[in-house]
Parts: sequence; structure tokens; C-alpha cells
Amino acid sequence: MSKKTAISPTREENYPEWYQQVVDVADLAEHSFVRGCMVIKPWGYAIWENIQRVLDGMFKETGHQNAYFPVFIPLSFLEKEAQHVEGFAKECAVVTHHRLDKGADGGLVPASPLEEPLVVRPTSETIIGATFAKWVKSYRDLPLLINQWANVVRWEMRTRLFLRTTEFLWQEGHTVHATKDEAIEETLRMLDVYYKFAHEYLAMPVICGEKTEGERFPGAVSTYTIEAMMQDGKALQAGTSHFLGQNFSKAAGIEFQTKEGGLEYGWTTSWGMTTRMIGGLVMTHSDDDGLVMPPRIAACHVVIVPIMHQEESRTLVLDVCALLQKRLGSVMYQGRPVQVKVDTRDLRAGDRMWEWIKKGVPVRVEIGPRDLAEGVVCVMRRDAPHKEIVKISVDGFIEGIENLLEEIQQNLYNKACLFQKERTRELCSREEFYQFFSQ
Amino acid sequence: MSKKTAISPTREENYPEWYQQVVDVADLAEHSFVRGCMVIKPWGYAIWENIQRVLDGMFKETGHQNAYFPVFIPLSFLEKEAQHVEGFAKECAVVTHHRLDKGADGGLVPASPLEEPLVVRPTSETIIGATFAKWVKSYRDLPLLINQWANVVRWEMRTRLFLRTTEFLWQEGHTVHATKDEAIEETLRMLDVYYKFAHEYLAMPVICGEKTEGERFPGAVSTYTIEAMMQDGKALQAGTSHFLGQNFSKAAGIEFQTKEGGLEYGWTTSWGMTTRMIGGLVMTHSDDDGLVMPPRIAACHVVIVPIMHQEESRTLVLDVCALLQKRLGSVMYQGRPVQVKVDTRDLRAGDRMWEWIKKGVPVRVEIGPRDLAEGVVCVMRRDAPHKEIVKISVDGFIEGIENLLEEIQQNLYNKACLFQKERTRELCSREEFYQFFSQ
Repeated sequence: MSKKTAISPTREENYPEWYQQVVDVADLAEHSFVRGCMVIKPWGYAIWENIQRVLDGMFKETGHQNAYFPVFIPLSFLEKEAQHVEGFAKECAVVTHHRLDKGADGGLVPASPLEEPLVVRPTSETIIGATFAKWVKSYRDLPLLINQWANVVRWEMRTRLFLRTTEFLWQEGHTVHATKDEAIEETLRMLDVYYKFAHEYLAMPVICGEKTEGERFPGAVSTYTIEAMMQDGKALQAGTSHFLGQNFSKAAGIEFQTKEGGLEYGWTTSWGMTTRMIGGLVMTHSDDDGLVMPPRIAACHVVIVPIMHQEESRTLVLDVCALLQKRLGSVMYQGRPVQVKVDTRDLRAGDRMWEWIKKGVPVRVEIGPRDLAEGVVCVMRRDAPHKEIVKISVDGFIEGIENLLEEIQQNLYNKACLFQKERTRELCSREEFYQFFSQ
Repeated sequence: MSKKTAISPTREENYPEWYQQVVDVADLAEHSFVRGCMVIKPWGYAIWENIQRVLDGMFKETGHQNAYFPVFIPLSFLEKEAQHVEGFAKECAVVTHHRLDKGADGGLVPASPLEEPLVVRPTSETIIGATFAKWVKSYRDLPLLINQWANVVRWEMRTRLFLRTTEFLWQEGHTVHATKDEAIEETLRMLDVYYKFAHEYLAMPVICGEKTEGERFPGAVSTYTIEAMMQDGKALQAGTSHFLGQNFSKAAGIEFQTKEGGLEYGWTTSWGMTTRMIGGLVMTHSDDDGLVMPPRIAACHVVIVPIMHQEESRTLVLDVCALLQKRLGSVMYQGRPVQVKVDTRDLRAGDRMWEWIKKGVPVRVEIGPRDLAEGVVCVMRRDAPHKEIVKISVDGFIEGIENLLEEIQQNLYNKACLFQKERTRELCSREEFYQFFSQ
């Protein structure tokens, strides 16, 4: 294999452009025909499916249930919470008509104007709050712990795939509690869920903190966030949890009868994580050869590349590959079968290999006629240099696959932790702070 | 328990109103503040999650991958396929502005009009087709087998929860093939997936058939459907699969280089199943006491209702219930743990029981102090009359739970099949047809 890197420019040469290139060569997503909206391609969407599966399990373990609320929000709902209007009701997709008619030139023109325009949800506090006001009557109905998986739209002028797009996918948790303390506890519990998820599954060491007033979610009393350090040393906000006090429950009228018979406004929270996480994953682990994926969240764990250029051994090689795929697929890793692909395409083995390097598959296996004779497979790790090849018996490989994947997961996490540690300085006073940044 | 039914009116008295009542008392969904849009409540959404999990597995087994495409479609895209315009580009949500400004009265008003209005997707053939035209270059890229889980919007004047709503959730499969035969084969393969899913998981005997020209999907060459018989004897369309010929590939420009070096338009299909299925499930199995759910798709399999009115035995009863829940939860049913709830709310046991009858939990278990003394539990099946109670040892119940759930599944299926059979007449000629319906 050549020494040149797959991605040009490299991270050092031009970090933002390197990022776009990785997303492109790994086939994760592309810009769509609609300004600012992306198409999430199968290889990228599979990562989102894994994120969903794991996070959804964590939400359910902490007592939350999923539900679904309308994609549209009446204009008047957005106006209810004063700060929320300021922060959110600006760059929105506004639906003003509910019909298309044939125009004079034969083309379609909007018809049947709506009495009240609708906004495509940029976030659902207002519409969910109004619904919760119907659901919550008594302290017995609390806590109300709901999550929604949905698409949201915020009209963005400058977009970057996954990191900032007009439409994105996310989950938004919305909860109501009887007391301030319980709501704060929930806010921090979900922040902790995000923290654990990032560390344990994404191999991404994040730092928890509270946002300043200026960066708070519009209408929140306090906003907490997990922030990850990218390879350019910059922070990426990777999940937020908001304590909303009684602001939204007052705006929406979420009132409940207390045990003592009084009437009180509920205390609410909201928290969300988005497809932006995929961008964060890319920027945390990938290198100048393309995507690198932690096994616990990877779309595929092992790719098998058969060497098929000798016609006489072709069938045998393919049979062995299919058998290996089957045997690996019966090994469980993180609660599901090891995900294996066999790449039988009629391309040079080196070209096929490069493609899977760029696409970030944690383990690559090469099997050719010579390996068959020796009863071994050639194993390569994505987190190690390309030329590092280990020959190992088929049985040994299968027995060790779970450990190997966990070793890669841990190695990526350690690397990311070290990177973060080397670039972290503790500054204990305002003086130190100014001194550091004025250097 | 009283003899009166939980639902009024009964099925016989007023079938459409009975349906609304079941959806209401089972807490599946409600109308939202946005005209025609529904809120899918946790008990209803859990059914959708199960539908998704099973169907998604079936799609992947047949070689499909998930992806995600924009929620917005430029107006000009809808105009590309002539018949599609006629059929779809009518009752749509039209986005015309991308900003809200403060109006003179302090309220929000739409601002920043779009150069080209966007339509919230009523279905995605046009936008996905345009993207496929970029992805498909050669016969090597085919077949392209993609599915999307998404929300869609069709502006409806008269809506009914699940059955017909302005916004609904669905999956839409979109595939491209090199030959007509392969595309027809795919169309029928996915129809068969829907057929199997309905029979084996929803316990819903459906009939496959081809739609007439007038009922065809706009732009399709042929539309196949599965239709289920509801308890009022009427048919419900419950999943469609379309062979689109080269109509959409010509409109979108999906061309590929053939093996022989020529250039040809791809042959495409699309197929979808929606949250309407939940309405079909309700109407197929439910009775005058509320929801009845087939175990394979139910949100919860077993509910345990502890009898807690004696203070001295309360703790013991609750401990036994918790233990039973834990032991049942370690039994696998249809590839996942048996789903168990313990209802410890401070309400009369009879009231709690009624709630779970109305919500359709397949198996109810009552445990009181007397049962503890005897070492038994009282088991009631939702598919049998209320008073049919079986006393059985705890171990016996746990050992038999998988069989019991499968028995209920089979029983519901048999009932539905019998119902359909009794109301089915074979008519072999046009003459017979007219004769039958003129009676």
C-alpha cells in the first residue's frame, strides 16, 4: 500500500476541509437538493441507529417512555414564553398554505392560506407543554417522563453536514415534576446519561458544565452541557440538559393538585442529543486515512476481504469467508451479534481494503489461498497503522473477537483522553485566565 | 365485576364511535392542538416501536438499508412526474417563508419568503429519485435497496386517529433495479413481507391483491395491497407495494450503464406501511371492553395487580410481585424479555384490573394474601371472558408463560380468520357478483 493518506487535505493542513472529506469518502452523508438539508446515507444512518438503540435503552432504564407529538406548532404557541420567542421564533420554516393549485403557466402555486401559520418544530417545549397541561391534573400524575425521537428544523444560513443543518434528527426529553429539587435532579440525571453514553459508547471524553446566561436555552433557568474536544483543540457541544423551572409550565398552564389539595405549577426539564453527535464522533477519532469508529457504535465490526484472483481457489476462498462470517455472526458483542461484511466485489483486493479503511471498519480480515493452506487469517486493526498485520488461526480469531473489539474501543478512548489531557490547563483565577490567553 | 361493558357504544351500536372510544380508554392517542395531527401517547407509541422493530428486521433480512432524506420537497420536484402531480400535489403543507418577525401588534408574522416554496413530504419518490440519480451510475450499483422511517404530511379534511391523520409516521421503501422483472419481483417480495408481518405478528388475516387503475398510486404502473377485514365487515388497506416501471426514473433521470455498455433507465419500486396499522390492529381484535392486543406486538405482556388492602400482608405481597416480575423478565418471548408491569397504585384492585382490561394487556395476574398462603397466582387472559380465572403455582405460571402468550396469539389469529371466512363469498363471474350485491 502506498504511503500517501486517503484524505487530502490532512487534519493539519485544513481541519474543516478534512472533516468534509472524511464524511464524503466514508459515505456518511451528502448535501441534498434542499438548501441546508442533508441526506444521511446508509453508512451514516447505521451509526444513528446504534446511537438510538443505546440511548433509548438508557432512557427506558431511567423510567422514560417514548411518545410522538405534531411536527407543526401554531404560531401563537411560540409566542407564549417571552424568552423562548426571542431565542427560537426567528429562523423557522413557516407553513402558510395547505394546498397547491395549477397556476397560469401550468406550474404549481400555493393555495388555501391557513388562518394561523404553522411553524415546523425547531424544538417542542411549547406544543408538548400544551399537551402536558391536559395530562397533568394531580401530583399522582407526576413525575411525567417523556421522550420523543423526531426531526426538527432550524433555518441555518451556513450549514455543515451533521454539525449544523437546517433539518436534523434528535431526541428531545420533556419531563414534569412536583418539586424544584426533583426537576433539578432529573436535569442532572440526564446530563449524566449523556456523559456516560459519550464515554462508554462513543469513546469520547466529555466535560460537563453549566452554560453562561448568554448561551442558555431560551426560556431555561439553567442549561447544562457535555462538551467534547475535537482534534483541532476546539470544543463541540454534544448534548444539553435544561432545567426550565416553572417558566414553560406557567406559559402552557401545567398545573397540578398537590397532596395537600393546593394548586401548583409543575417544574419542567428538557434535554436533547442530535445527529450532530455523528459529526463529533468523526472529528474525535478519525485520521488522515478517513473514518475511525469505536466498535460499540460502529455500523459494522469486521469486514472480510477475500483474495479471489486465482480462479482455481476462488470458490474455496469464498466458502471459507462465508463460513467465517457465519461463525463470527454467532458471537455476541455488546448484546448483539458481531456485524460482519464480506466484500466479494470484482475489484483489486487493495482497492477494496482502502475503501473499508476510509469507512472506518474496526477490524479487517484478508483471506487468500496461501492463508487457507496455512489455516490462518490476516487481521488488521483500523486503530493501528495499515501495515500492521497479525496472522492468526481462524479459531483463535473467533474466540478473541470480543476482546479484540473491546481492546480497540479502549484504545480509542485512551487516545482521546490523552489528547484532551495534553491540551487541558487548569486555571484557578481570573488572573491566571487572562495571563494564559494573552500569551 | 359488573356485567356492563367498558366501552359505550358497543361495536354493534356504533362501530366508528366504538373505535374512537377504544383508542381513548386504552390511552393510545389523542387529537392535538394542530388540526388533523395526533399525539401518539406512550401506550400507542410502544405498539409502533414493536411494529418498527419487527418490520425493520424483516427489511434488513431482505437486504435493505435505512437512510434519511429531507422532510422538504421543492415544488418543482413534485411537478416532474405528470400523474404524480395530479395525485399528490394537492393537499400539502406548503412552506413559503423561513423567518418570523415581530409584527406591528407585537405578534409574530412570517418573513423572508422563499424563492421556491417547499412542500412537507407527502411521500418521497421525487426527492429520493433525484438523489438516486446521483448514486446510480452503473449496473454494479444495482439493486439499490433503501428504506426510510419518517413522518409525512397529507392535508386531510376529515381525520380519525391513526386511520387518517394529516401527519402520520411510516416507512417508505425505495428501490432501483436493472430489469423490469427484478423490480416486479421486489414489489411482490415486499408485499409478501407485509403479508407475513400481518399474519404472524398482528394476527391479522389479510388478503393480497392488485388495485384497480383508479386506485393506483399516482405514477405507478401497478399497485399491490394487503387488505384486512375489520369487525364491521369493511376492508382496511394495510400496506401497499408499487411497481413504478421507469416512470419515476425517467422523471428524475436515474440512468445506469448496462453490462453491455449501453445506457438505460432504472426500474423502481416503492412500498409503505404506516401508523394506520395501529388503527387496523385496534379494529381487528378489540371488543366491547376495550383494546385487545396480540402478544407478539403488545406493549406489555403481563400486568401484576397486587391486593394490598391488608396492612399486615402488604409488604410481603409487594415483595412477591417484584420477584415474579423479575423472574418473568428473565424469560425470553419472541427474542426479547417478557414485558411485565406491576401496578402498585393506591386504587381498588378492581379499578386497576379494569384499566388493564381496557388497555389490552394479554395476561393479568392478581396476587393477594390468600394466594400467598396457597402458593398460587390468579391468572386471567384478555382473550377470554373476565371471570375466567385460573389458579396456578408460581413456578407453573413462569414455566408456561411463553406457551400461554403464543396460545393467546394463535387464538386471536384463529378468531380473526374465522370471522373473515364467515364473511367471505367466492364469486366467480360478473353475473354472480351483480346478483350477490343486488340482494
